[in-house]
Amino acid sequence: MGIIGLGWFGEIHAETIAGIPEIELAALCTRTPERLAAMGEKFGVKKLFRDYNDMLADPEIDAVSICTMWDQHREPAIAALQAGKHVFLEKPIASTVEDARAITEASKGSKGILFIGHIVRFNPRYRMAKQAIDEGRIGRIVALSSRRNIPAAWTPTILEKIGPIVGDAIHDTDIMLWFTGDRVVSTYAQTVDVRGLKFPDIGQTMYRFAGGASATLETVWCMPEKTPFDIDERMSIIGTEGIIHVQDTFPNIGIVDGTRLHSPDTTYWPMFNGVRGGALREEFGYFASCALGGKPVTIGTPENATAALEATLAAEESARTGEIVRIG
Amino acid sequence: MGIIGLGWFGEIHAETIAGIPEIELAALCTRTPERLAAMGEKFGVKKLFRDYNDMLADPEIDAVSICTMWDQHREPAIAALQAGKHVFLEKPIASTVEDARAITEASKGSKGILFIGHIVRFNPRYRMAKQAIDEGRIGRIVALSSRRNIPAAWTPTILEKIGPIVGDAIHDTDIMLWFTGDRVVSTYAQTVDVRGLKFPDIGQTMYRFAGGASATLETVWCMPEKTPFDIDERMSIIGTEGIIHVQDTFPNIGIVDGTRLHSPDTTYWPMFNGVRGGALREEFGYFASCALGGKPVTIGTPENATAALEATLAAEESARTGEIVRIG
Amino acid sequence: MGIIGLGWFGEIHAETIAGIPEIELAALCTRTPERLAAMGEKFGVKKLFRDYNDMLADPEIDAVSICTMWDQHREPAIAALQAGKHVFLEKPIASTVEDARAITEASKGSKGILFIGHIVRFNPRYRMAKQAIDEGRIGRIVALSSRRNIPAAWTPTILEKIGPIVGDAIHDTDIMLWFTGDRVVSTYAQTVDVRGLKFPDIGQTMYRFAGGASATLETVWCMPEKTPFDIDERMSIIGTEGIIHVQDTFPNIGIVDGTRLHSPDTTYWPMFNGVRGGALREEFGYFASCALGGKPVTIGTPENATAALEATLAAEESARTGEIVRIG
Amino acid sequence: MGIIGLGWFGEIHAETIAGIPEIELAALCTRTPERLAAMGEKFGVKKLFRDYNDMLADPEIDAVSICTMWDQHREPAIAALQAGKHVFLEKPIASTVEDARAITEASKGSKGILFIGHIVRFNPRYRMAKQAIDEGRIGRIVALSSRRNIPAAWTPTILEKIGPIVGDAIHDTDIMLWFTGDRVVSTYAQTVDVRGLKFPDIGQTMYRFAGGASATLETVWCMPEKTPFDIDERMSIIGTEGIIHVQDTFPNIGIVDGTRLHSPDTTYWPMFNGVRGGALREEFGYFASCALGGKPVTIGTPENATAALEATLAAEESARTGEIVRIG
Repeated sequence: MGIIGLGWFGEIHAETIAGIPEIELAALCTRTPERLAAMGEKFGVKKLFRDYNDMLADPEIDAVSICTMWDQHREPAIAALQAGKHVFLEKPIASTVEDARAITEASKGSKGILFIGHIVRFNPRYRMAKQAIDEGRIGRIVALSSRRNIPAAWTPTILEKIGPIVGDAIHDTDIMLWFTGDRVVSTYAQTVDVRGLKFPDIGQTMYRFAGGASATLETVWCMPEKTPFDIDERMSIIGTEGIIHVQDTFPNIGIVDGTRLHSPDTTYWPMFNGVRGGALREEFGYFASCALGGKPVTIGTPENATAALEATLAAEESARTGEIVRIG
Repeated sequence: MGIIGLGWFGEIHAETIAGIPEIELAALCTRTPERLAAMGEKFGVKKLFRDYNDMLADPEIDAVSICTMWDQHREPAIAALQAGKHVFLEKPIASTVEDARAITEASKGSKGILFIGHIVRFNPRYRMAKQAIDEGRIGRIVALSSRRNIPAAWTPTILEKIGPIVGDAIHDTDIMLWFTGDRVVSTYAQTVDVRGLKFPDIGQTMYRFAGGASATLETVWCMPEKTPFDIDERMSIIGTEGIIHVQDTFPNIGIVDGTRLHSPDTTYWPMFNGVRGGALREEFGYFASCALGGKPVTIGTPENATAALEATLAAEESARTGEIVRIG
Repeated sequence: MGIIGLGWFGEIHAETIAGIPEIELAALCTRTPERLAAMGEKFGVKKLFRDYNDMLADPEIDAVSICTMWDQHREPAIAALQAGKHVFLEKPIASTVEDARAITEASKGSKGILFIGHIVRFNPRYRMAKQAIDEGRIGRIVALSSRRNIPAAWTPTILEKIGPIVGDAIHDTDIMLWFTGDRVVSTYAQTVDVRGLKFPDIGQTMYRFAGGASATLETVWCMPEKTPFDIDERMSIIGTEGIIHVQDTFPNIGIVDGTRLHSPDTTYWPMFNGVRGGALREEFGYFASCALGGKPVTIGTPENATAALEATLAAEESARTGEIVRIG
Repeated sequence: MGIIGLGWFGEIHAETIAGIPEIELAALCTRTPERLAAMGEKFGVKKLFRDYNDMLADPEIDAVSICTMWDQHREPAIAALQAGKHVFLEKPIASTVEDARAITEASKGSKGILFIGHIVRFNPRYRMAKQAIDEGRIGRIVALSSRRNIPAAWTPTILEKIGPIVGDAIHDTDIMLWFTGDRVVSTYAQTVDVRGLKFPDIGQTMYRFAGGASATLETVWCMPEKTPFDIDERMSIIGTEGIIHVQDTFPNIGIVDGTRLHSPDTTYWPMFNGVRGGALREEFGYFASCALGGKPVTIGTPENATAALEATLAAEESARTGEIVRIG
């Protein structure tokens, strides 16, 4: 398997693949020669490419993970699918619905599978919630609310590329679509610009679903320095017969050291002995089992990823224009 | 002191006044003779009235609490103020902004004080938060979010009279106005009708403040039978330099008995040995100290109560019309 | 009312009495002239004494609170009771069981009441738990466990005078005796000396009750600088038919400012506008209602306080000797 | 791989192995023919044995997991090791220290590896805590406390075979030994017999470590029917420079349905689509990587397992005799 794009998250992909026995990390690709050499050495990978087309031409590479910037997904994803590779594409699937549809289209004729990395579906709390919903234990879903807040220190670079609604509320949007089995028909959102970066730091989003359910989504990308949270992540799902509360990560673990209380991520990609585990490894395991076992992708499909993208782009439009935006 | 209106909450007022040494519960008023007699006996009160004008004519009564339905506040409140009584008026101050202003006007010329029972300001968690905000510990407030959810079993009767936004989000609205020192300039809200009662069971509200802060407010009045919560109540206040999380009531106390896990209210009006304590007693203590000590009312003023009413009425209009509603 | 002993907690008493309309703070007593003058000015109190006997001789003083060091309770308490004053005596009642019994004895013939300040009985969570236990909702109590941990920064001075078992586990001991209605028959305890102060910083205590129930009590007086907790306080009560969990204070309120996450006390003696509220005010209100209303003291009796003292002293003996200590 | 012993946990092993690509579940062994046939059918396993010696004689079986009762570990474990199989042995390693040593001895000369299933070491929260401790972030450990409580409904059968101290506190004992790198020198424990089964339902244990640290461990095996917890599991580790709190599982996920609030296990062996994940799968993955990769076992060694057994057996002796028991 090869990785295209070696930013912060491409490196995390590499650290995760190292822990999957069925997958060998065989190739890396990025434009910057220094970064490429450093990552090649760190992971003991020989095949190093500056142009992804060269990687795709290598017949020994069966699969690629694409971690380029969200507005640079279309070309490498379509090229990889056309080359017959299995594709693990990071979320959001693309930066426009048009791109997303083109990528989806390309996957139809490919002998490779296309999987979009909506990692939260591999968080065991949400999987357990989904099972409970499917068993009818909370009745029909009538309302949802979510929070996905992260520290200010993490986000200055990201906020030059993507805002918190498409960047993070897309996770909760995807989960809400999964839980309700419904579609979003309108959205209203408000943002707050705290630090004067390219995108506003805070997004608050509201959805109306076709079946009548209502939802709010909070995404704050400027939690203060001393916050205990790596991610302050919660969701409540209100049904006619029951209710589900998911709360990650605190207070699973709280570490008070000389600096502050830390509540580190033990769910998504915790690192132990240099190898990443958690939901990200689950994702790669699922991807491997589909690719190697010839099973169709049913989680992380491009159709689901496109629906989540469409709703969050509409929310951002609402925040920009101050108007309610209807979908479909 | 006398109580006008002896529904569920009028009785709670009586149970609270019993624990305030400076106040004597001397008179009760309600239209239904059976209820009046029963309450008179329960509290050992001799002066029983079916018409509040008779109570107001009694020179031995210095103060009244008004617990009539929210759309029946105007007449008794104005009459009491004109009679020179001190008035403890339950929230919402009225059912229309016009009524609220008329009541406020009546208070200007009265020798009695007018206090509106916005009880959450007497919850020690919110008072502590207010102090921290005033000390500048979290910088400028940029976003807020709140939840105030209650069990379905409590609400069928209430939902024939008032909905969750004006009924409950008004608490959080008042607190947000207090914390920000700002005013709401626009609102968008969505409701969900779960049980087909007169008002919808669920409200999700979004505010924009004049200074740019954004807020969401969740009010679910149909939590399932087995929920542990009496009130699932939370607020997060995000500042430029810090953040505050308030969480009442769980997990302060969890009682697992033969039926379920209970997380009873120990904050607002817990009853011990037949007498109510908590924030409601704080409120009455504050009311008594203003009334007896000649101090001006600075918490629970009619102006603040009117601002909170105006914002929540606008939110309800938004939910009804599907449009953003601007204020002022 | 007068206060004897103006250390840290005597001042808190004064700040609390200021909020009790039935009580007038009329006199102060401490040996240090500077402290006495400063406190007199702060609270606007005219009657300032360096010898408590002078205060007790003043017929205008009806009641005293005694906040001297725990091994200096006997003389002022007995003198005050013999002078016919109502006495609010801070916990522990004394430093030896013999002293405790002498004080109790003195209260029998006095026209003043004797109340021992076991404040946790006025925490609404424990009161609610007690009610649930008395209603039979959790069946017969078979086991209990508690924690009462405080920051290291608070304790260097205290640890020169008293250790965490008699100093703090006595609260939970008193509550466990109250909840079970039973007595402790044996104890085993271990301490850990972390900072080399006069008393060890950490105590872990185990009790066996006469009726067979078992209990553990944790008291750590050296939580690190960045702990969010003012008090990390919890109790679980396991019954044959149910279970109760009490958790104070976090996460009621969490304030993240520039230094760390704070979870300040909003239960015991929170200060708002310079006046203390919470359980400490409840205690003074109860004391006033007994003293003024001629009601017998049933909470905070010297007999209960002596039983809690006896158990914790036995636990400290166990920790010193390494042996199990049996009682009674 | 084969499984010896097909009780409740042997079946869970089978459900877990199904999700490990490197391991094939090839053989099953139990005495009861009906159970053997049913499990063979459920998991599609052909090789079914009633005598484990027959399984061990099969050269196609490289590894076995042993899930027999804790006092029936010695013979199959030694036989399997002598047959050169890799052995995954469930905790406790044995029912006596003598048996544990004999099994350990047998592993020395075997070409198979011996791994003891101390699953909590694979819980990411404890692993994260261990990392923080090893990095020196909390200084030297001075005290620990733990809870591991489970519902009464789960335990009547288990309590005929093993008590909560050796059955469950052994997990926390192992973790405490791991965290401190120390050994237990004395123990005092108390048990409470609630339901009159063979072993008492409740254990409260105290340890003293050689280096001076003190610990309490709570294990209640009779939580009431309506408790939200599958496992109420917590640990606090108090260091000279910091503190760590681990809290599994609640409130990660709370599901309120028609019966009660549930907080299901999402950490140890959650089942999704019929396959077990979580820490149990981590364990099997670790076992497979050692067995297939020729790596030595460093987690779950028989020496560590024996130390934890010895401490918990001493605690049970203390509870039986009422005396402090010293070790080593």
